[in-house]
Amino acid sequence: MMTVSRIKKGSVTQTFAQKDDTLTRLKAVKYSQTLIKKRSVTPEDASCQPWLAKKLQKMGFTIELYKTQGVSNLIASFGSAPTRFAFAGHTDVVPAPQPELWQVPPFDGEIVDDELIGRGAVDMKSALAVMVAAMEDVLASGYQPKTCWQFLVTSDEEGEAEFGTRTIVERLIQDDSLPDYCVVGEPTSDRNTGDVIKVGRRGAVSATIIVNGKQGHVAYAGYAENAVHLASTIVNTLEKTTWDEGCDDFPGTGLQVTYINSGAFTDNIIPGRCEICFNVRYSHRYSLADIQEKIMNRLMALPLSEAALQSLDIKWERHCQPYFTQDKKQDSLIAKAELAIHSVTGIFPRLSTSGGTSDGRFLASDTTQVLELGLPNKTIHQVNERSKLADIHHLYHIYCELLRQF
Amino acid sequence: MMTVSRIKKGSVTQTFAQKDDTLTRLKAVKYSQTLIKKRSVTPEDASCQPWLAKKLQKMGFTIELYKTQGVSNLIASFGSAPTRFAFAGHTDVVPAPQPELWQVPPFDGEIVDDELIGRGAVDMKSALAVMVAAMEDVLASGYQPKTCWQFLVTSDEEGEAEFGTRTIVERLIQDDSLPDYCVVGEPTSDRNTGDVIKVGRRGAVSATIIVNGKQGHVAYAGYAENAVHLASTIVNTLEKTTWDEGCDDFPGTGLQVTYINSGAFTDNIIPGRCEICFNVRYSHRYSLADIQEKIMNRLMALPLSEAALQSLDIKWERHCQPYFTQDKKQDSLIAKAELAIHSVTGIFPRLSTSGGTSDGRFLASDTTQVLELGLPNKTIHQVNERSKLADIHHLYHIYCELLRQF
Repeated sequence: MMTVSRIKKGSVTQTFAQKDDTLTRLKAVKYSQTLIKKRSVTPEDASCQPWLAKKLQKMGFTIELYKTQGVSNLIASFGSAPTRFAFAGHTDVVPAPQPELWQVPPFDGEIVDDELIGRGAVDMKSALAVMVAAMEDVLASGYQPKTCWQFLVTSDEEGEAEFGTRTIVERLIQDDSLPDYCVVGEPTSDRNTGDVIKVGRRGAVSATIIVNGKQGHVAYAGYAENAVHLASTIVNTLEKTTWDEGCDDFPGTGLQVTYINSGAFTDNIIPGRCEICFNVRYSHRYSLADIQEKIMNRLMALPLSEAALQSLDIKWERHCQPYFTQDKKQDSLIAKAELAIHSVTGIFPRLSTSGGTSDGRFLASDTTQVLELGLPNKTIHQVNERSKLADIHHLYHIYCELLRQF
Repeated sequence: MMTVSRIKKGSVTQTFAQKDDTLTRLKAVKYSQTLIKKRSVTPEDASCQPWLAKKLQKMGFTIELYKTQGVSNLIASFGSAPTRFAFAGHTDVVPAPQPELWQVPPFDGEIVDDELIGRGAVDMKSALAVMVAAMEDVLASGYQPKTCWQFLVTSDEEGEAEFGTRTIVERLIQDDSLPDYCVVGEPTSDRNTGDVIKVGRRGAVSATIIVNGKQGHVAYAGYAENAVHLASTIVNTLEKTTWDEGCDDFPGTGLQVTYINSGAFTDNIIPGRCEICFNVRYSHRYSLADIQEKIMNRLMALPLSEAALQSLDIKWERHCQPYFTQDKKQDSLIAKAELAIHSVTGIFPRLSTSGGTSDGRFLASDTTQVLELGLPNKTIHQVNERSKLADIHHLYHIYCELLRQF
């Protein structure tokens, strides 16, 4: 464990030489490469979880691997202490549709200079690899965990997330084994590993509105009701709805119309139908019911004809709960993470709740504190997704420090 | 000519027995059937014009048949008097895409009870047939025309009208032989032949606006500019533009948005582009330049970002001039038509300028009075397009009366 000893607590990451060959021999990097080589595009697992399970089993974890509707899931736990610390993540990655645009093949896990390049190098096979390596080394060092450690993995985080972490949480509830603390390995960092952690995410919900007018000839507009005119009034109303502005802790709520279409046309026909889709990202100050009620009230107050209002057809879909982990004075997961990060990098992380949704929403509850802590996220989902080896190495140390607090 | 003598001038049309077999033997009906059997879907003429030309030539007309870009046109004239009376029409018909829905095949020209059923039975092969029969019979009766008679026919009225009547007018200008009076055989009547004539039509112009915003992720709306939000503001502005209200003579100007589409989408992307199409029907109080200027001024006054305004891309298309024939005290075509209609039906027609565009727009000018006078238009472009034989018979008498004034 030469490389581990080379980093001093409190030292800043940039002290690593950019071409330090020892980094390429890191266990966490090797594990990352192994996982990247398995082509686990959502919802495929491509044997990532059996590989993880084997490593965890060797450490003494009990293993539960199960498949639901084509989605692979892994629940592993170490020890039987009443307090539980979980690490959660996913083995699936988004596709790499144009491999010829990549500097190196996206599923080869190659290292170029001081960077590991490949699909999942950031989001988030490296985080899984790092945590496995950290658990191995912390246990091998003789550390006796004070809590039960859990390792929760799905192969459907990038997709619909219908049969992934949601079902893991259902099983944990059934076994009365929900974690008290949960770190999700999503890439949260900005410039350097540990500079940002996520302590919440906005909720999201989409909706489709079918606006029904009355088709007719443009020369006889009096006999028709233009569905595009109605739809535009509705878009304006949706757009102008005021929400909370947000605060330091949490960005405000926002609504965006994502689609509008009146269908096939000729230029002498007044369209009788128009489809609108919109998406709301909302803060933890609202419930889904609040959002729906507010929008319905706005729409029903529109100066539209009774017929137009009656025929408005709204379908809500793809709801994601918000979550928000506050910094509790006692037993704060945030404080523990801050301590671990500071001890490795010498800085305290910025707490953020921005960005899209994550599986953290399924895990967070009144009894489970959740935060997300992972690699710098600049290249996720992109061509040449890549992570600096130094960032992987720092994440390894941060995870080690974190584990020693549980 | 037994059937001709059966109708008394000033008698009302309903005196005809519904099942009068003599009507089915009318020359105008037979001619209509002949034309309906020729499948002249736009821009095809299917030998309708050669058939008309043969009849006209026999009467002593000089004939000019020519084809431009697949469109057939016929210019025929009788006599060389300096004052000219023209009859204008088209041999093309709209398609009959579902013949199985018809009571009888759409291109058979069958009579069922007291009605002629077929594509073109109203719009407007019957009017062409009626005028040919009327000219034949009026000339055969020994009448000496006081004016030069013209017979102007195209096979592209239902289509783009690019190479039809427009080119006929160009040729007439070249020959210095534009008509002073022109009757278009379009179906203008409401319940009975002659109850409505058109003395003008609104102008029309379409436009497409491409609205360019800036695509982005819905969770980071601050970095994007939603093209659907912009487009809806534009639609609202277009819709709320005030125009002239119209008057007894002429309906007001109106704008209808005919299409809106933001393209393919996913519900986490803020659309960066949206297409809007609209159509303006405008009265003779405006020129095309007035319409364009008014709309551009409205758009440029919108509270949009400079970038959004700069990137607005507007394309104007399919312009149709308005026309309006006023009832001049002397030599009024309207007065002559009213007289002819009243002498046959006992009623005076209602003068209308409503409805879509017609080829009348190409023919009308300061020196050419234009009106449209034809069959009841309730079934045009529909399945089972049909005309009562009595209506065809009355149109024949009206056209005969009209011819005797020229």
